[in-house]
Amino acid sequence: MSDPDSPSPRRARSGTREARKARRAQQPHAPAFITRRLPPYELLGEEGLLAIEAHADQLLEEIGMEIRGDAVALSLWQRAGASIGDAGRVHVPRGLARELVRRSAPRQFTQHARNPARSVEIGGAHTVFAPAYGPPFVTDIERGRRYGTLADFENFVKLAYLAPWLHHSGGTVCEPVDVPVNKRHFDMVYAHMRYSDKPFMGSVTTAARAADSIELCRVLFGAQFVAEHCVILGNVNVNSPLVLDGEASRVIRTYAAANQAAVCVPFILGGAMGPVTTAGALAQCFAEALFCVALTQLERPGAPAILGNFLSSMSLRSGAPTFGTPEPALAYLAIGQLARRLGVPLRCGGNLCASKVADAQAASESANSLWPAFLAGANFMLHAAGWLESGLAMSYEKFVMDVDQLGAFHTLANGLALDENAFALGAFREIGPGRHYLGAQHTLQNYEHAYYDFELADNSSYEQWTQEGSRDQLARAHARWRSQLAGYEPPALDAAQDEALRDYIARRKGAMPDEFA
Amino acid sequence: MSDPDSPSPRRARSGTREARKARRAQQPHAPAFITRRLPPYELLGEEGLLAIEAHADQLLEEIGMEIRGDAVALSLWQRAGASIGDAGRVHVPRGLARELVRRSAPRQFTQHARNPARSVEIGGAHTVFAPAYGPPFVTDIERGRRYGTLADFENFVKLAYLAPWLHHSGGTVCEPVDVPVNKRHFDMVYAHMRYSDKPFMGSVTTAARAADSIELCRVLFGAQFVAEHCVILGNVNVNSPLVLDGEASRVIRTYAAANQAAVCVPFILGGAMGPVTTAGALAQCFAEALFCVALTQLERPGAPAILGNFLSSMSLRSGAPTFGTPEPALAYLAIGQLARRLGVPLRCGGNLCASKVADAQAASESANSLWPAFLAGANFMLHAAGWLESGLAMSYEKFVMDVDQLGAFHTLANGLALDENAFALGAFREIGPGRHYLGAQHTLQNYEHAYYDFELADNSSYEQWTQEGSRDQLARAHARWRSQLAGYEPPALDAAQDEALRDYIARRKGAMPDEFA
Repeated sequence: MSDPDSPSPRRARSGTREARKARRAQQPHAPAFITRRLPPYELLGEEGLLAIEAHADQLLEEIGMEIRGDAVALSLWQRAGASIGDAGRVHVPRGLARELVRRSAPRQFTQHARNPARSVEIGGAHTVFAPAYGPPFVTDIERGRRYGTLADFENFVKLAYLAPWLHHSGGTVCEPVDVPVNKRHFDMVYAHMRYSDKPFMGSVTTAARAADSIELCRVLFGAQFVAEHCVILGNVNVNSPLVLDGEASRVIRTYAAANQAAVCVPFILGGAMGPVTTAGALAQCFAEALFCVALTQLERPGAPAILGNFLSSMSLRSGAPTFGTPEPALAYLAIGQLARRLGVPLRCGGNLCASKVADAQAASESANSLWPAFLAGANFMLHAAGWLESGLAMSYEKFVMDVDQLGAFHTLANGLALDENAFALGAFREIGPGRHYLGAQHTLQNYEHAYYDFELADNSSYEQWTQEGSRDQLARAHARWRSQLAGYEPPALDAAQDEALRDYIARRKGAMPDEFA
Repeated sequence: MSDPDSPSPRRARSGTREARKARRAQQPHAPAFITRRLPPYELLGEEGLLAIEAHADQLLEEIGMEIRGDAVALSLWQRAGASIGDAGRVHVPRGLARELVRRSAPRQFTQHARNPARSVEIGGAHTVFAPAYGPPFVTDIERGRRYGTLADFENFVKLAYLAPWLHHSGGTVCEPVDVPVNKRHFDMVYAHMRYSDKPFMGSVTTAARAADSIELCRVLFGAQFVAEHCVILGNVNVNSPLVLDGEASRVIRTYAAANQAAVCVPFILGGAMGPVTTAGALAQCFAEALFCVALTQLERPGAPAILGNFLSSMSLRSGAPTFGTPEPALAYLAIGQLARRLGVPLRCGGNLCASKVADAQAASESANSLWPAFLAGANFMLHAAGWLESGLAMSYEKFVMDVDQLGAFHTLANGLALDENAFALGAFREIGPGRHYLGAQHTLQNYEHAYYDFELADNSSYEQWTQEGSRDQLARAHARWRSQLAGYEPPALDAAQDEALRDYIARRKGAMPDEFA
C-alpha cells in the first residue's frame, strides 16, 4: 500500500472537504499493487545465468547494436566507452552495459497516480498488472470485431478503473482509429487522466508525442512534481534484431531526460526477429533490453527504467506467432533471474493468446503465460487483461475474464499463512474425526475470507446451470462488462485542472493539420 | 525411458516375430513418462515445513485417526507402538508414522505395463499423467450429458491409449453404469488390459474387488511377475476427516500385501471435511496420507505406495466446491516439499475444474491446477484429462484439450537448453542486426523441433479462421476425438492370454447375482 507520508501530486494537496470526500470514495478495495510474499521460481543455477550473461555481453561487443539516425545516442555511448562502427553499429565492451545499469538505475521506483492511494511500486517484490496495449481492433460477442474508436478506448479505461485487480490504466488500450494519427496521443492520455485515477502510459510513436504526453502530465501534476517523480511510463519496442531506430532511441531518451520511466522491450518472434532456439533469443532479448536501459542511464543517471521483453514462438504449420507455449515460459523464468541479478524492474508476460475468441484456447494460453511470468517475479505486467488474437484485438469479454484471473494471483502472492489460526488446532479439537466442519466455530470465523471466489466462474450444479440457460463463461463475461460500464462513475477531477488539460490539448491540436497515416 | 534390461512381464518374453513386430508398431512417439529437468518450486523454508510436520504429528498423536471395523489394521498399529482408544481411535506417537514410511517405503518404483516400453517410473524427478477418475456422467457436445456406459469407458481407454502425452490408462475413467455394480470392476480392468497397453488402476470399492483386480493381473502378467513387480495401482480415498473405514483400510492392505501400490488420498473440501484455512487442511491431509502410507508399510514393508491429496476450496456464494483457486495451488506446492522430505512419490493436482462445459472457465481452472501441481513435483497426476463439472462428468472434448496441454508440460519439463546450438552464435554472426532469421541456416536446422505446437490451437489469421467457420476450440476438439476414435486400432494381445482373461471373468461373474446398488 502507498505510504501515507509519500509525496503527493498537486491535487492531493488541495484540501477541500469535497476533495477529501471524493478521495475517500475512491479508496480501492484491493491493494494498489501486489507485494509478493512467496519466492520467485529459480529455474537456472549460477552457471546457466552466467552463460546467458556472457552471451548477451558477446552479442553487444562482437555483433553490436545499431542505432539508426540518433547522433546524440551514439555520442552518449561513445563517451561511455563503446566503439562506434559503420552504420551506427555500437560495440559495447563486455560488462559495460550492466555496469552502467547497476551504477545508477533504480532497483524500484514509485509511479505516482493522481490519486495517491493508486500509486504503484515497480520493482522488488512488487507486481503491477496493466491492460493489453496496442490492438487496432476491438471485439465483443454482440457487435463482433471492428476497428477500435476513441469511445472504445474510453470504455477500456473505465473498465480498468473499475477492475479491482488491475493496478494500472495502461497505455494504448486500443487504437482509436477515428482520431487522426498525429492527435491520438492527446486523447489517449487525457482519457487515462479523466476517466481513471490509476497510473498510466504515454505515447511512444514519436519523440514529439512522447514529449507531449509528459507535458500533459506537467499540466495535471505540476511541473515541479513531474521533475521529481515518475508519473508516466513509455513502452518502447526495440527494432529487433539488434536495432534501435532513431525515433525509438529518442523516445527512450525523452522519457529518461524527463525523469520518467522507459519500458525497454525487445520484440522477438523466434525464428523471425531472433534465433529459433530459446537460449539465443533470450540472450538477444537480454542484450537489447540491457542496451536500452543503459541508454536511459547515459541520458540521465538515476532515471527510472524497466527491463522488458516480449518473446513469442511460432506455429510449425503456418509460421504464425503462437502464445502460451512452454518455450517463452522458460524464457520468462530465466529472465526473471537475470533482472534480479541486474537489479532493475522487469516487464514480462501477460494474458497472451492467439485465439480469435475468448474460448478454452484463449484461457489456457493466457494461463500458460501468466503463471510463469508471475513466478518469474514480473514487476510490471502489460497485456494482463483483454488481449486476444495475438494482440490484434482487445476483447471486452476477455478483459473481465482476465481480471477475474488476476484476482487469484493476489491471493497466491500472499503465500501460505502458517499462523495459529491457519493451523486450526482448536477446530480439530472441536470436531474430531468423522464429523464435518461446516458449523465449526473456526469455519464460521474464517470462511468469508478463506477462498478466492472467481466472479465469473459458475460453480452451481448441472441442473441449476441448465435451468439458468447453460451459459458459458463468455456469455457471463458479456453481461458482466456491460453492467460494469453501465454503473461506471468517473473519479473526481478538479474542474480547473480538467479545463487546463482541455485547453492545452485544443491549442496543440489546433496547430496541427490532421494526419491519418 | 524404460531400461531395456528391466524385467518384462510374460508376454514380452514371447519372442515370436509377429509379437516383436507388433511391439515395435506400439512404440510410443512420446516418452513413457516425464523426467523433469527443472527444479521443483520451493514455496516454504525449513521453518514452515517443520511447522506443518509438527502439526500433522500432533493431529495423529492427540486427535488420532479412527479405523472403523478393521481389527487387523488396528493390531498392526498397536504392535508398531500406537495406542488404540475408543472406537478404534489410533493415536500415533509423534514422528512414528514418518519413521515407518522412511524405513521401508520406496522413494520411487516402476509400474509395469504389459508393453514394457510403456512402463512408468513413479517418484523422484518423474511425472506420470493419467486420465480423470470416477465420473458417473459422460458428455460430448453432440450427444450431451448422460450416464456413462461400458462403451464410453472403452472409448476413454482407447483415447488414452492414443494420447501421446498420457502415460497411464487410469482407473474408473467413467462409471459404466450399464454393468452391475458388483461386476463392473472385471469389465473395467479387462478394458484397460485389452484396449490399451499402458499401465492402469484396479478397483477399490471393496477389498474383494481389489483382490479380483490383482488376480486379473496375475492372469495377464503371471503370478510370479506380479509377486515381484508393481503392475496395478489402487486409488483409495480416506474418509476425511481423520477416518479410515474398514473397507478402505482393507483395500489399502490388499494392494500392499500383493506388493502393489495403494494411492492414499485424503479427500478434503475445505470447510466440510477439514478446516476452512489452508494450513490446517494441509496438515490434516498430510497426516491422513502419512497414516495410510505407513499402514502399507505395516502390512508389507517395502510395498510401493503413493502419498496422495485432493484438496479443494468452496464458493462463498453457494458452498459448492471450487477448483483452480489459489489456496489449493499453495497447498500443492507445500505438499510437494513435504513429500520430497519424506521420500515417497506424490499424487496431486490434475486438470480440475467446476465448469459444466469445456469453455474458458474450464481451461483456466484446469491450468491453475496443472501449473502448481507440476511445479510441486507431482509424480502421479490423476485427473489429468477429461475432468469436467467438479468430477461429475467425463468430457470427450475436454479430454483431448487437456491432452494437448499436457504435451506442453513435456517441453517445459526439459528445461532450458543452454548448449552451443541453443545460443545460436553462428546465426547472429550470419544475420547481424536488422535482418530476419527466417532463412538462416540455424533456423532451417532447428525450426522443426524449436517449439511445442498445440494441436488444438488455432493460430491462423482472423480472416482465415472466419472463412473456416469461426470454430472455437470446443468444436475443434469434438472433431479431433471423433477422428481419433475412428482411427483406433487395438494393441496386439496374445489370443491365449485374452481367452484366459475372458474365461476367468466369465467364471467369476457367473458365480455372482447382479447387483445394481
